[in-house]
Amino acid sequence: MMACVISIGNELLRGKTVNTNAANIGMKLTLSGYEVTKGLTIRDDPAEIAWALKTGMESADMIVTTGGLGPTFDDMTIAAVSKALNLPLIDDPETAQRLRERYARLGLQATTERMKMASIPEGSTVLPNPVGAAPGIFLQIQGKTIVILPGVPDEASAIMDSILDRIRIEGTEYFSESRFMKGTMESTLAPIVNKVMKEMDSKVYIKSHPRHSETGNPAVELEILARSEGKEHAKDLVETAFNRIFEELSHRSKDIRT
Amino acid sequence: MMACVISIGNELLRGKTVNTNAANIGMKLTLSGYEVTKGLTIRDDPAEIAWALKTGMESADMIVTTGGLGPTFDDMTIAAVSKALNLPLIDDPETAQRLRERYARLGLQATTERMKMASIPEGSTVLPNPVGAAPGIFLQIQGKTIVILPGVPDEASAIMDSILDRIRIEGTEYFSESRFMKGTMESTLAPIVNKVMKEMDSKVYIKSHPRHSETGNPAVELEILARSEGKEHAKDLVETAFNRIFEELSHRSKDIRT
Repeated sequence: MMACVISIGNELLRGKTVNTNAANIGMKLTLSGYEVTKGLTIRDDPAEIAWALKTGMESADMIVTTGGLGPTFDDMTIAAVSKALNLPLIDDPETAQRLRERYARLGLQATTERMKMASIPEGSTVLPNPVGAAPGIFLQIQGKTIVILPGVPDEASAIMDSILDRIRIEGTEYFSESRFMKGTMESTLAPIVNKVMKEMDSKVYIKSHPRHSETGNPAVELEILARSEGKEHAKDLVETAFNRIFEELSHRSKDIRT
Repeated sequence: MMACVISIGNELLRGKTVNTNAANIGMKLTLSGYEVTKGLTIRDDPAEIAWALKTGMESADMIVTTGGLGPTFDDMTIAAVSKALNLPLIDDPETAQRLRERYARLGLQATTERMKMASIPEGSTVLPNPVGAAPGIFLQIQGKTIVILPGVPDEASAIMDSILDRIRIEGTEYFSESRFMKGTMESTLAPIVNKVMKEMDSKVYIKSHPRHSETGNPAVELEILARSEGKEHAKDLVETAFNRIFEELSHRSKDIRT
């Protein structure tokens, strides 16, 4: 199953904020058995949100959005999703009550802007926010699952955790291991990685990340991933791939610098 | 002028790597006068790279890509861009010579995988990489500017810096200021921000980011941006907007918690 992560917010595009949400959610989706195939970052703009939703739904089964759920004028995700999917906005009484209580406790008025956070697209489920005001939204439509999360990283992460059991793909196990290889250059590994991946019939995914060791010598972080029906099998595949790479590397020892 | 930032790499989608490149480049483009309107993150896959390039060129004048320029099997950006734009790949003799010297100095062979980094799409210019092997590419085609950068953050950043004078939009000045407001909630500010932005006829962009002060009391970081023909004018607009917000806020002092 494919997944698309949509990040909404001008501050991400302008570089004011580094998009840690996309990485956090991408990791959780991957470990839940999804293949994250697209990330779309867009402005706080209804037409852009509609475009991203359409693009995500064309290529993925699971779409997770972050951002644009708060009380400010540029928090327009819910209204835009509602319009794009032709689902009327309805008031969620429980959320409305929770918001009124929250603001009463804080000695603040339940303004129109604040109560906007109790509006949800018809047919969706509210995902309570354990650390903030704006709840998330869970929606299944046209055979797709859409999860709408706030942009504040702690809130997005907490709500995402609360649905992992619900979205996890049955029978998918995932294993990943990284090892640092000092004195090896990425370009030395390239043909070996290529060979081993072909050999193993693309059951593993091997990725090298160039690093620098403390002494300034070249180093590579080698990450090998396997997903299988059983955790042990995924682990075995990763172990086999590492062994094959070390074996091949030992034949080319003149390239290894210590 | 609009800009689109394309980030290429499975590790970004899977959440193994946080996409700091997109923020760094987004910031530099914004300060150079561009409006960054889209960010696309895609897999190391030629069809996906072609899709992102097409999507970027449809909506933006400036397209910057990062990732997929190294010597490994999954570094396929140049080949994919070349194919998508129907530009044959040619060898850049200077880059080839530089790579041969580099690997000779390191006591390594100039393998096919390594020499791939000297291939560039016809009509493009090589952007030397002051901190790594893979050079960047600068390409103007169909009225668009395409900048292709490596994925290693230091390398992407250094090459990007080397072209800022070349890509800067003449006569565009940009000013941005952030102030922390302790004891104010984002939802208190929302109607005020709305009012002031309307008043100022969208010449400024006001963004609030909820923060928590050390004491656990609510706090907001208020960021105001203005772009104008002159730096002083942009600065004045920002100052005016802050003053208007403080003025409005003082009328609603019961909402302010200290």
